[in-house]
Amino acid sequence: MERINIGLIGYGIVGQGVVKILKNRRKFFKDKYKKDFFIKTIADRSIIKKPSPGLDNTVLTADHHVVLNDKDIHIVIELIGGMSPAKDIILSALRNGKHVVTANKELLATCGQELFRQANADNRMIYFESAVGAGIPIIRTITEGVAGNKFNGVYGIINGTCNFILTEMSRRGLTFQEALKEAQEKGYAESNPTLDINGMDTAHKLAVLVFLTQGKFVSVKDFHVEGINHISHDDIEFANTLNLTIRLLAIAKKIGNELDVRVHPTLIPKDHGLATVNGVDNAIFLDMDPMGDVFIEGQGAGQMTAAAGVVSDLINLGIRKDVRMPTWIFNPTEEQQDLNLRKIDAVETRFYIRFMVIDKPGVLSIITGVLGQHNISIASVNQKQENKGSTVPVVMLTHVANERAVRDALEQITHLAVVRSKPVAIRMEKL
Amino acid sequence: MERINIGLIGYGIVGQGVVKILKNRRKFFKDKYKKDFFIKTIADRSIIKKPSPGLDNTVLTADHHVVLNDKDIHIVIELIGGMSPAKDIILSALRNGKHVVTANKELLATCGQELFRQANADNRMIYFESAVGAGIPIIRTITEGVAGNKFNGVYGIINGTCNFILTEMSRRGLTFQEALKEAQEKGYAESNPTLDINGMDTAHKLAVLVFLTQGKFVSVKDFHVEGINHISHDDIEFANTLNLTIRLLAIAKKIGNELDVRVHPTLIPKDHGLATVNGVDNAIFLDMDPMGDVFIEGQGAGQMTAAAGVVSDLINLGIRKDVRMPTWIFNPTEEQQDLNLRKIDAVETRFYIRFMVIDKPGVLSIITGVLGQHNISIASVNQKQENKGSTVPVVMLTHVANERAVRDALEQITHLAVVRSKPVAIRMEKL
Repeated sequence: MERINIGLIGYGIVGQGVVKILKNRRKFFKDKYKKDFFIKTIADRSIIKKPSPGLDNTVLTADHHVVLNDKDIHIVIELIGGMSPAKDIILSALRNGKHVVTANKELLATCGQELFRQANADNRMIYFESAVGAGIPIIRTITEGVAGNKFNGVYGIINGTCNFILTEMSRRGLTFQEALKEAQEKGYAESNPTLDINGMDTAHKLAVLVFLTQGKFVSVKDFHVEGINHISHDDIEFANTLNLTIRLLAIAKKIGNELDVRVHPTLIPKDHGLATVNGVDNAIFLDMDPMGDVFIEGQGAGQMTAAAGVVSDLINLGIRKDVRMPTWIFNPTEEQQDLNLRKIDAVETRFYIRFMVIDKPGVLSIITGVLGQHNISIASVNQKQENKGSTVPVVMLTHVANERAVRDALEQITHLAVVRSKPVAIRMEKL
Repeated sequence: MERINIGLIGYGIVGQGVVKILKNRRKFFKDKYKKDFFIKTIADRSIIKKPSPGLDNTVLTADHHVVLNDKDIHIVIELIGGMSPAKDIILSALRNGKHVVTANKELLATCGQELFRQANADNRMIYFESAVGAGIPIIRTITEGVAGNKFNGVYGIINGTCNFILTEMSRRGLTFQEALKEAQEKGYAESNPTLDINGMDTAHKLAVLVFLTQGKFVSVKDFHVEGINHISHDDIEFANTLNLTIRLLAIAKKIGNELDVRVHPTLIPKDHGLATVNGVDNAIFLDMDPMGDVFIEGQGAGQMTAAAGVVSDLINLGIRKDVRMPTWIFNPTEEQQDLNLRKIDAVETRFYIRFMVIDKPGVLSIITGVLGQHNISIASVNQKQENKGSTVPVVMLTHVANERAVRDALEQITHLAVVRSKPVAIRMEKL
């Protein structure tokens, strides 16, 4: 039976999960796939402090070059994350004839094109199922499961931490800070959860989804990314009464020959599948031609779920390792080559806007006056009844309005004497 | 550029959709996959009466042997359905060195083992994405996307016609007959919808899911299959008040070394993803180790959706055609070899039971007495208030009860003088 020799670089939480699966399932995989998946070497800078993998004949080393220079290793798993030295590790692995498995969305989003070019040049493959949606098989689904379709749009809840926070704020009335603290205590959020909260992790994953669905490499610097830290309990409650749910949504949709790519908190109708995605779950909604809509939901975080995604990559690579499977994300079609990113200023959506104003007559007229000057028309106005203090929230839903116009209007309104703080604007998405 | 020559046998609704996609996307596929997917021959017994495919250089014939004997054809698509001559066509195609794409769930469920053995022997592949869930990429997901997982359970809504009927009965208060008529008018149901309604179509698809997830070929004759024609509007309404939804569910779960495989109308908690699957949508819920749960939903019927599934098979086969990709459904693991089908008599679930009884004192005591004798304990009893006639429905929810005991009790109760018709029993599934 053929042995697939694996080198693991980065023996953290997910790496330990991968080792656990390969150890416990070795016989199962031999039976099923007729291959022996074997971890030959584990490299981690602080390998001495890490728990024993409990594997015989597996070399432990602090030096990842031991893996990269081992001629017998077929597949290298990169699980250290971040840009450096992950990028060099992957490039070296490819040049040394190894296939690569990685979960590194930041690196793929930033240097994907360069990495895939190198892989193509070296006739090797990079698999990255765990980079988006942890174990949910969204990468394999897009690249192979729905092969042949064109993608009108991709909508995703792809950060478990943010979704947990928004769910718990809504379900149990927690404040943002309380929900974040709980996410950290439960191990969902990083001790430094900045990339989760500010939307950047979601943006990295969205960039990956964009090159998979549209053959286009876009930089997270070139599209609008907004986190969830300005969402208050009031917003969640108002949304609720309007039969809407707030989710941090990754959006990439084709409008003519433009690509509208954004990450921001989004109001979703409660009866849409994405609105029912709770806790650390992730979900992706694909709008395709001619297949129609496909919706996939699963656990978006967790050691074993992420590890399961890495293992599915290993198995698929193990099966296909002597085959040249094309990385067809490199072949944008004629129509895809013409796609340009739509500027955020040109985006048009409906808006939820919460103003904190002094509770006195005439205020509404001043605000709606400014909105009117900017061609923003109002669909509804709500004011919380129980609030009797001097500052009250006023919530408006607009009709479809231009992003730039809304920003300009809100800038102007912020400086009005009757307005107590920067208005909160949340986009609504028609799904 | 390499040309992939395709022979299509069966030029019905789905076949015409496939031709439409391949015709409109030829350039797109060349750009993206660097292959020219070309329909060389279309065979259909009544080809003269069919609409023109509008393709140059494509041969039209009434004789499928023209396809089977053509040495230049790489892939044969079988879309005639049914057992004969579909089986012989697939076997001949394999023997003649062609890969096969089929959507024929009845044939796969009945002769899958034989067909896959032949494919293995001939070093060819059979792809069948459209056989279950139309275009939803469930086959590719199970075989590759989540490779490496063990399946604790698979739960599916996989017949669009039945789901449409149950949805419309619930949503608009239609009777079963009215909803069925509308499904036929809209083209969802066959003119003879027997296989849909009696659960057999769902059973064929479930048999396919069972061999994919458990490496085990089971015959639809060996597991419990029940359709939806006995579901009344009363049942839908009672379910609604109990916060439950009725769906025709395909179930295959592992309990120890037994496989519990069933198809029947099932009460599902309203907040479960499967309960929100409406209209002709299909959905599959996978409970896996270690990945956790994955839920996939999409259109379960329709010409272009089914055609899209066939096209994704064509593309994947076109890319992989010179590669020996293993058909690993042939490799049951040691633990899978020991799996036995659980007898329906041994199944234990909760039950919803509706009795039509004469409205007089003491009736409840008689019925609950019989249930008690059979060790069936009652969780709740409901009686429709507005019903003042001489015959009233009484609805009971049981605690977990043995299938055989329930059947015996209901048989006994049916013969009681106070009972007006055969009680309706619907299983509840804890998901």
